[in-house]
Amino acid sequence: MAAVEYLGIDIGGTNVKMGIVNSETGQITNFYSHDTVSWRKSGHFEDRLGEAIGLQLIDNKNITKVGIGLPGMINSARVTPIEITAIPELNNVPLVEILKKRFPTVDFFLENDANAAALGEFYFGEERIDESYIFITLGTGVGGAAIIGKKVFTGGRGNAMEPGHTPSVNGKVLERNIGKNELLDLANSMRKEFRGITLLPDDGTISTTGLVASASEGDVLALQVFAKVGELLGENLCHLVAILDINLILIGGGLSASFDYILPSMTTKMEYWLTKYHADGLTIKRATLGNDAGLLGAASLCF
Amino acid sequence: MAAVEYLGIDIGGTNVKMGIVNSETGQITNFYSHDTVSWRKSGHFEDRLGEAIGLQLIDNKNITKVGIGLPGMINSARVTPIEITAIPELNNVPLVEILKKRFPTVDFFLENDANAAALGEFYFGEERIDESYIFITLGTGVGGAAIIGKKVFTGGRGNAMEPGHTPSVNGKVLERNIGKNELLDLANSMRKEFRGITLLPDDGTISTTGLVASASEGDVLALQVFAKVGELLGENLCHLVAILDINLILIGGGLSASFDYILPSMTTKMEYWLTKYHADGLTIKRATLGNDAGLLGAASLCF
Repeated sequence: MAAVEYLGIDIGGTNVKMGIVNSETGQITNFYSHDTVSWRKSGHFEDRLGEAIGLQLIDNKNITKVGIGLPGMINSARVTPIEITAIPELNNVPLVEILKKRFPTVDFFLENDANAAALGEFYFGEERIDESYIFITLGTGVGGAAIIGKKVFTGGRGNAMEPGHTPSVNGKVLERNIGKNELLDLANSMRKEFRGITLLPDDGTISTTGLVASASEGDVLALQVFAKVGELLGENLCHLVAILDINLILIGGGLSASFDYILPSMTTKMEYWLTKYHADGLTIKRATLGNDAGLLGAASLCF
Repeated sequence: MAAVEYLGIDIGGTNVKMGIVNSETGQITNFYSHDTVSWRKSGHFEDRLGEAIGLQLIDNKNITKVGIGLPGMINSARVTPIEITAIPELNNVPLVEILKKRFPTVDFFLENDANAAALGEFYFGEERIDESYIFITLGTGVGGAAIIGKKVFTGGRGNAMEPGHTPSVNGKVLERNIGKNELLDLANSMRKEFRGITLLPDDGTISTTGLVASASEGDVLALQVFAKVGELLGENLCHLVAILDINLILIGGGLSASFDYILPSMTTKMEYWLTKYHADGLTIKRATLGNDAGLLGAASLCF
């Protein structure tokens, strides 16, 4: 298939980013970013978005497909946002219908941003991967997506894959045990046991960057925190593997910088729980798309 | 759609059952059952099966679709059994190809038996239900299936939905905590704490029938055992709901006779863990197809 170009749009709580993406190389041109708040304040977010799309289409007359990633839940027909916490103005706005009316010759594809980013790994990732995989994002929360046969798995009602909301230890769901803040709380609370054998600060100011840097230098406290993260994540991933029958797992998100330090305990835990059928061929990798994951993911919806 | 007739075949470890099923009423005629062992011993299970199908087709010339349920894993193209523990002779036998060669004008649909039974609830269940639901079977093991948009969800590699193999308490997977034998072990081991306040036998001979009967009479030991089952099942079901975004759950299998006694603790547990989005509208029901679930399920593959 010859390379074509798609317009990818990553709508986030802070910025709306868009760019023309080459379907073969993943190269981004005509990059444009606008702050989200001022569009929200205008009272007509969808019109501001439409105008920005219009400018891109005037400059790029070859574009016939536009992919849009949104930070929240959309309806199962994939045309209307239903719960976008960061941009509630979009809730129940028939976005695809509105855009289609404005640009009748263009097709629009709407998807949750984590799902889009997951799909982007297939089309734009560094190496060729299976057509089915589980995608986990580690950050403030624990997000997820599943790609099955090159398609976003949307489940029964359209919003599948919330691994962060699954039961974990201490009576808390997974992301309330291993989300960014919880992980720092854990590190700070363990700090005093490690007096003299860790260089991490003892005044409650441990940062995730500091934790990752310390782990890379063999710091025992940092390594122990990430081992705990790997253990808890691994246990919940076993549910995903046994339910979805997928044995490739990609880990992305800001905290995936700790990948090397969470992997050993995660693997041990999963080998303990999984049956031979599921454990054979289990592969856990770090996702390869970095800052552009959102935009490339949105463009990948056009394939 | 006018009623048509399908041939349903339920291949089990003990018996192979088949019958002509009316697509509208679910009425079964021409019922035929043969013991599985003698076909296995013949060394040509697929030929014996072919002969039995041939007899049915001679008697029922209107049949053009045959659904077959098998107790194990089949390949993702749904044409070849890959791991049938009870009938290993069928492993890697290209069953659909063989049957199609023998009966060129007939279409064959192969599926795992739990998946087939789950689908049967949609087409032949007592009441109209959603097109998407989770189906759990309680028995010696804990089996499962998911129907999404009236279709069997097969996951990434074809063998999705093994809730019995997901992590649970005591370092054991779910079915090793609440399978039939584990439940009886639990009841027998708790027996002495309930001296004088339970009528269940104290000589290690508690049966599941006895437990269900006692629970219906308010026996505290029986009720406590089922409350524990509901708790553990409920916790693991929360993973299924958050991963699949399905909020209708049907419970079937022999031990679903205990449905009324496991429901309260299961519901409490799920309401504790689930987000509002997932908890709203959550419905847990007992599956309605009884002994004929396997055969009707097999026939439902033909829709």
